[in-house]
Amino acid sequence: MALLVDGHCHLTLAGDLDRPALELACSEADLPPPTGVSYLDGQLGVALRRWCPQALGLPAHARIDDYLARRAELGWRVASRALLRSADLSALLVDTGLQHDGLTSLAELGMLADAAVHEVVRLEQVAEGVAAEGVEASGFADAYTEALGARIRDGAVAVKSIIAYRWGLNIPPERPSPADVTRAAGAWLRDGGGRLTDSVLLRHALWAGVDCGLPVQLHTGFGDRDLALADADPARAQPFLAAVARAGVPVILLHCYPFHRNAGWLAQVYPHVYLDIGLSVGHLGARADAFLAECLELAPFGKVLFSTDAYLLPELYLLGAAQFRHSLAGLLDGWIAEDAMSTDDAEHLVGLIAGDNARRVYQLPDPAP
Amino acid sequence: MALLVDGHCHLTLAGDLDRPALELACSEADLPPPTGVSYLDGQLGVALRRWCPQALGLPAHARIDDYLARRAELGWRVASRALLRSADLSALLVDTGLQHDGLTSLAELGMLADAAVHEVVRLEQVAEGVAAEGVEASGFADAYTEALGARIRDGAVAVKSIIAYRWGLNIPPERPSPADVTRAAGAWLRDGGGRLTDSVLLRHALWAGVDCGLPVQLHTGFGDRDLALADADPARAQPFLAAVARAGVPVILLHCYPFHRNAGWLAQVYPHVYLDIGLSVGHLGARADAFLAECLELAPFGKVLFSTDAYLLPELYLLGAAQFRHSLAGLLDGWIAEDAMSTDDAEHLVGLIAGDNARRVYQLPDPAP
Amino acid sequence: MALLVDGHCHLTLAGDLDRPALELACSEADLPPPTGVSYLDGQLGVALRRWCPQALGLPAHARIDDYLARRAELGWRVASRALLRSADLSALLVDTGLQHDGLTSLAELGMLADAAVHEVVRLEQVAEGVAAEGVEASGFADAYTEALGARIRDGAVAVKSIIAYRWGLNIPPERPSPADVTRAAGAWLRDGGGRLTDSVLLRHALWAGVDCGLPVQLHTGFGDRDLALADADPARAQPFLAAVARAGVPVILLHCYPFHRNAGWLAQVYPHVYLDIGLSVGHLGARADAFLAECLELAPFGKVLFSTDAYLLPELYLLGAAQFRHSLAGLLDGWIAEDAMSTDDAEHLVGLIAGDNARRVYQLPDPAP
Repeated sequence: MALLVDGHCHLTLAGDLDRPALELACSEADLPPPTGVSYLDGQLGVALRRWCPQALGLPAHARIDDYLARRAELGWRVASRALLRSADLSALLVDTGLQHDGLTSLAELGMLADAAVHEVVRLEQVAEGVAAEGVEASGFADAYTEALGARIRDGAVAVKSIIAYRWGLNIPPERPSPADVTRAAGAWLRDGGGRLTDSVLLRHALWAGVDCGLPVQLHTGFGDRDLALADADPARAQPFLAAVARAGVPVILLHCYPFHRNAGWLAQVYPHVYLDIGLSVGHLGARADAFLAECLELAPFGKVLFSTDAYLLPELYLLGAAQFRHSLAGLLDGWIAEDAMSTDDAEHLVGLIAGDNARRVYQLPDPAP
Repeated sequence: MALLVDGHCHLTLAGDLDRPALELACSEADLPPPTGVSYLDGQLGVALRRWCPQALGLPAHARIDDYLARRAELGWRVASRALLRSADLSALLVDTGLQHDGLTSLAELGMLADAAVHEVVRLEQVAEGVAAEGVEASGFADAYTEALGARIRDGAVAVKSIIAYRWGLNIPPERPSPADVTRAAGAWLRDGGGRLTDSVLLRHALWAGVDCGLPVQLHTGFGDRDLALADADPARAQPFLAAVARAGVPVILLHCYPFHRNAGWLAQVYPHVYLDIGLSVGHLGARADAFLAECLELAPFGKVLFSTDAYLLPELYLLGAAQFRHSLAGLLDGWIAEDAMSTDDAEHLVGLIAGDNARRVYQLPDPAP
Repeated sequence: MALLVDGHCHLTLAGDLDRPALELACSEADLPPPTGVSYLDGQLGVALRRWCPQALGLPAHARIDDYLARRAELGWRVASRALLRSADLSALLVDTGLQHDGLTSLAELGMLADAAVHEVVRLEQVAEGVAAEGVEASGFADAYTEALGARIRDGAVAVKSIIAYRWGLNIPPERPSPADVTRAAGAWLRDGGGRLTDSVLLRHALWAGVDCGLPVQLHTGFGDRDLALADADPARAQPFLAAVARAGVPVILLHCYPFHRNAGWLAQVYPHVYLDIGLSVGHLGARADAFLAECLELAPFGKVLFSTDAYLLPELYLLGAAQFRHSLAGLLDGWIAEDAMSTDDAEHLVGLIAGDNARRVYQLPDPAP
């Protein structure tokens, strides 16, 4: 399979890491596991040991302590470069809105991966930045528009909303009125700003994202424990999705699991709705085949996008890419073997999901010949 | 596998069709896809090209333009006849309530398919007809009962409700009172009738359907974009299902995907509840095996019914029937191979789902010997 | 595979049974099936005939009437002993709170199965017992604590809540206040006590269970028709699960199907949350492989627990254990064959789910060497 476009990912750690840090980065949990349980004893941990050791010169399924020793020996930079290059990615769309100490820069990540990098701007972070810089309530809406415009002017290819975390996907479909935005901004700013959870302001940011004309990536489905899972079903966002149908911007449902069948239906019936398989493929490891198959039930093949949603660990880029290639190939081999589709159909499908859909939706430059 | 009883389908187009019309009829979307996306690039489109070209003398997986050229050459009547007969159906239960220009008649469909045809009466359409003919609010309830009685008198074998589209499946379990029906009818008729979305009248129609003694088919799960997916989970209808348990009529949950596991439980614990696999099998194509397997987890085998839910395209009858036969056979071969069930068990299961359950539930005549 | 710890089950019938009783015990329905439908024509019935006849000297897939004749010939005691011993269980955690005429005693069950038995105390039953013995509303809270303490003093290893049946899993996360408990107890006791459905008292019982320090088993997912399926999604319990995170007691989500993927996420992000696969494996029969695979998507392997949830029929112990062994082995063989995990990884996983996790969570004695 050719190079992949990673349609949604994050920055990696510029530093070495110990086993507890590795374990926690391999889980959506924010606390260590109870005694006797390891977060590496799970699909993601097993898949990491399946796909990553080879990039560092170790055999597949190496013990995790051996792997970490080898990684430390090489140093984070060499290891990151080896892991990222083994992922064979042509372009990375990087959500730069997750704050963490000691991350690589966007340019550094691109060099390590030998791939083009494009920024994805997180809408809530822009709002929090506007509040931190100081603004009057009555000027918030304009200041937000201006700040967002400044952030996307440098080549951003998409915006992203994490309203699923902050409010849930029961998004009232109406745009909040300017008066409501001013009132909500007043209350938020009086409290000192900070983590944005006000539903009016979250929706304001989301509509500003729609207005700026770039594709909108929307977190849906599982994530870390901040999230109320029942509120993260993309089917709950249906009234909002219907409301933005006429805006002419693609909306990309990220992750989706375990609601990906619902997402597949949304991608079929709304011309502007797309389904991104990131995070899920990596976390599900050997079960990614089942997930991909379920995504490909109702979603048109032209609406499904690859990504890793990798964060912190370069391992997660390689794991996501390798597992995707392996699982999709297995699925298609099965369908070809039972004559469900022709080899040409299968190759066309792979090309769409691996990069053609992303290049079309995000208006990326064509791959080098 | 023997002839199938198609427990829920619609009329076909009496006319030729071009590629855009074909594409749209292969999707639940009501708008054309965005540039670069084809609705035929998906499971249903791939399955159509797998199962249908042979009926028109082309090889499987023929290109869609070649297929359409051949179809045009034969003309819709010859093509429809070839496709429908290849589906090997013994009887069709046809929901005649979907309005569209240029449909075949019920009798014509039966002749094209060489199959018995039985009508399924759509409850909401009868109500809209009563309003269109003119009635006083105070006389609506009686007029509805009379009109429904007249419609089913000619040999209808079931009634159907699309309350899932118009209100959702959170159906309050009580019968609406006569006073409430009169009041709601007054408001609706004053507005000129038309598309029925009033919850009181929708429930009145549903209970009238229950009262008429025929099996009640209930749309659940996905459908076109009119529908709020989150409200179409049959588990939401549990209070209503419990309330009609004593009425002595079977309730058939149609489609069900992606909530078919919930439907399977309902079919297990409520003696009067059944699960129909129509629409889903056709749309899922090569993935129908997974869907059927999930339906057969909790639902007793005596509660699962085959249908195609085909509409407009004769291709959808053949595709639904062929994919069902293929996927169910593959599933059962796997279970026999791992000794999960005997060959006798598997044959019994096929007989039930293919037609025995439908003949029992809808009280159809026995098949010709 | 070694002996299994059955982490959640019930007592068996001390008596013979006829075919209607067998059928009903093989379904979650409480009423006989409609004419023409058998509850044994389903995954559980097929799996029973696959796994149980051999224990009574018959071939696999024996006809059910032959099986029942053989069972009657042996008598319930000999048959129960043969079936239970074939299940190869080392310990049984028995929820003794389900009332039924003619059950074995806990000790008798242990002897029949040749396994250690440990009691699981059902929280709601203790409350109903306190009411039956007579108590003032103002003394209910203390009397409940005392009664629960007395019940667990004799070696109980867990408590269990069926609030999913009585109220649903939308459990308000706050502890009810003493004044609210007294008020609710007053109303309940004035009505003569009986089946506890008051949400304040159900929550009081649940928090008392948390306070007693034993692991808390929580019914989630499908069950008999008492249950509102839509309210039994463990994701709905997320606020409650978050609220008890600091109490330091494990919470084990029982059954989970068809919401087991949601449960897997909860087990990943909350250190104190576990996932028990009982009831589901038996009911799904040949489909248990798919269920287990889906459980093992997000849940750490150290968080997944085997049980049968067997009740009344000794067949359900054997079926649950045999199907689990077979389905898990099949799953792991597949993963090993495609090199997704090493044999060592697979053996480690089996050890965890088969018993190591249960011994750790319920603090059971180590197995005999």
